[in-house]
Order: sequence, then C-alpha cells, then structure tokens
Amino acid sequence: MNLNALQKLGYGMYVVGSHKGDKLNAQIANTVFQITSEPPTVAVSINKQNLTNEYIKASGVFAAAILCQATPLPFIGGFGFKSGRDGDKLKGVSYKIGRTGAPIVTDHATAYLEAEVIQSVEVGTHTIFIGKIVAAEVLTEDTCMTYDYYHQVKRGTTPRTAPSYIPPEKGGKK
Amino acid sequence: MNLNALQKLGYGMYVVGSHKGDKLNAQIANTVFQITSEPPTVAVSINKQNLTNEYIKASGVFAAAILCQATPLPFIGGFGFKSGRDGDKLKGVSYKIGRTGAPIVTDHATAYLEAEVIQSVEVGTHTIFIGKIVAAEVLTEDTCMTYDYYHQVKRGTTPRTAPSYIPPEKGGKK
Repeated sequence: MNLNALQKLGYGMYVVGSHKGDKLNAQIANTVFQITSEPPTVAVSINKQNLTNEYIKASGVFAAAILCQATPLPFIGGFGFKSGRDGDKLKGVSYKIGRTGAPIVTDHATAYLEAEVIQSVEVGTHTIFIGKIVAAEVLTEDTCMTYDYYHQVKRGTTPRTAPSYIPPEKGGKK
Repeated sequence: MNLNALQKLGYGMYVVGSHKGDKLNAQIANTVFQITSEPPTVAVSINKQNLTNEYIKASGVFAAAILCQATPLPFIGGFGFKSGRDGDKLKGVSYKIGRTGAPIVTDHATAYLEAEVIQSVEVGTHTIFIGKIVAAEVLTEDTCMTYDYYHQVKRGTTPRTAPSYIPPEKGGKK
C-alpha cells in the first residue's frame, strides 16, 4: 500500500469561516466540494480539534472563500498553522460578515459561498459538515489555487490536523 | 446569489468502480476526497440513479482510479455519459480486479485506491460513501487531471446526474 496515491487527489484551497455569537474564526481547508445541485449543497471536512469546528457546531453556518493561485504563502500560513484560540486570525485581513453571520475573507478570494448546515457526520478525527448554500458570489476571474499548486509550486506544507496529512514515517512529505 | 461560484471549487477526475457479485461497473466522478489521515479514509459522492451507487451499496467497496491530464475526452465520455445498464462500459478498457473485487481502471491512471465503506450518508440526489482505504498504489508520475482543466482546456461538459451540474437557466454552461 502506497499512501502517496492520496496526494494525487485534487482539491482547491479555501478559507472556511464561522462564528459563535460575536466571536469569529476562519481556517484553511482543502476539502470543500459540491454534493448535490438541486438544492445546491456543499460539504466541508474540518478537524474536531479546530476552533472553526466548534464554531460551525455552535452557529450551524459556514462560509468558504475560494483562494486565487497568487495567494501569498504567509497569508495561507496565517490561517493554517495557528489556532484562533491563540489570537485573532482575522486581524489585518479584509473580510465581510455574510448573511449567515460568518466571516467571508475577501483578500485573495475569487469567489465565496455561505451555507447552513443540514447534516453533519463524524468520521474519526474529522466532521463532515453538509450545508445548503444560501449565498454565493463570484469576485474575480483570477485562476483559482489548487492544492497541488500549493504543494508543488509554493512548496507549502500540511499541518498535522489536515485530512490529507501523511506522517513522514508513512511516506508523507516533511 | 451567483451559483457560478461553485464552478470555482477544485476537484480531480476519477473513474470510480464497484461490483455486485460478478457484475462490474465504473463511472466518472470528480468528488473523491480524503477525510481523515489516521486511519486513512476517503469519501466519494455518487448519484443515487447511477448503477455504481447500486453496486457500492451491494458490495460495500469501491475503487478510484486517478486520471492523468492527458486522458482523451472520448475515454471520459465513455464512463460519464452512458450507463452501465445499457452496456459494458469496461469493454476495451484496461483494468484489473482489486483486492476488494472492484474493477480498477488502469488506462490513463496515475494512481488508484480501494476502500471498504464504513459509513454512508444520503444527501438529496446523492450518496456520500465514506471508505477506509485498504489498498493504494502510485502508477505514474504524470500530471493529474483537474476538473477545471477538463472544463477549460478539454471543453468537457457535465452530465445532469453530477453533483456539480448547474442547469443552463441557473447560469450553468451548456
């Protein structure tokens, strides 16, 4: 079995945000995907340890900003390798509050969507939140960033809490 | 609300196969994604009308072949725009039977994985099958096809039964 096969699955790069009362948080995610077209629903997989998971469970809503290929690595790192428990990750970042109350990051975003959770599924370390889309807008026609581009060109790394993390001893990249 | 935002989500291109007894079937899918790393699990979203959905429910297993960027359009069309109910889609295609008994398409594949279903979730028109990975191999280092490449460069279209289908009257491409 060669788990490097998993690194060939294709994803985009997203900033997923939610809220708990007036507290806001957002994090990098690569697993946002459409499930049905009528009604339009999307799913997102979020580690149970993450503050965003707690906020989505509290509010029942999430927003996903779709990042452009030109997004700088430090911007991604700011949402991916630190926790909102240790500081305000949205400080210095352009965002707006959507109709769900979730923060929509607009810096480097080509489009966004907002969803209300209709089902959630616990799978080991992660929760899959399935949401009905209640808002969606296209912001730019810039090329979107793929997870592969992030790894190959940007030489980005994967935090231990990501669905796609592979420990180095099992063949994952350090 | 502009549902074209959904077309900016990133995916790969896969041939998902399963079996029902000694009957085999496979279909194109764009929603295969890793959910957890320990144990390694993946999910796939398959329309309930599709024969592959019926077969995955019957056998509790699926295989996913990850397609390379150079995959010809007619090859994709053969798995995407016709049903296994109307003929043997694997005729003339290279594949092998994996350890799960599911057919693994090897033509144009850069890697593959096989999974045993541990949970399934019905969401409107689709079923999300969540599977524990029991086999995975890398076949080539060719660039993988993204769903965006299929649409933009190959000018591929989306069948009505796909999760990402958007009716033309709602802004989808014809």
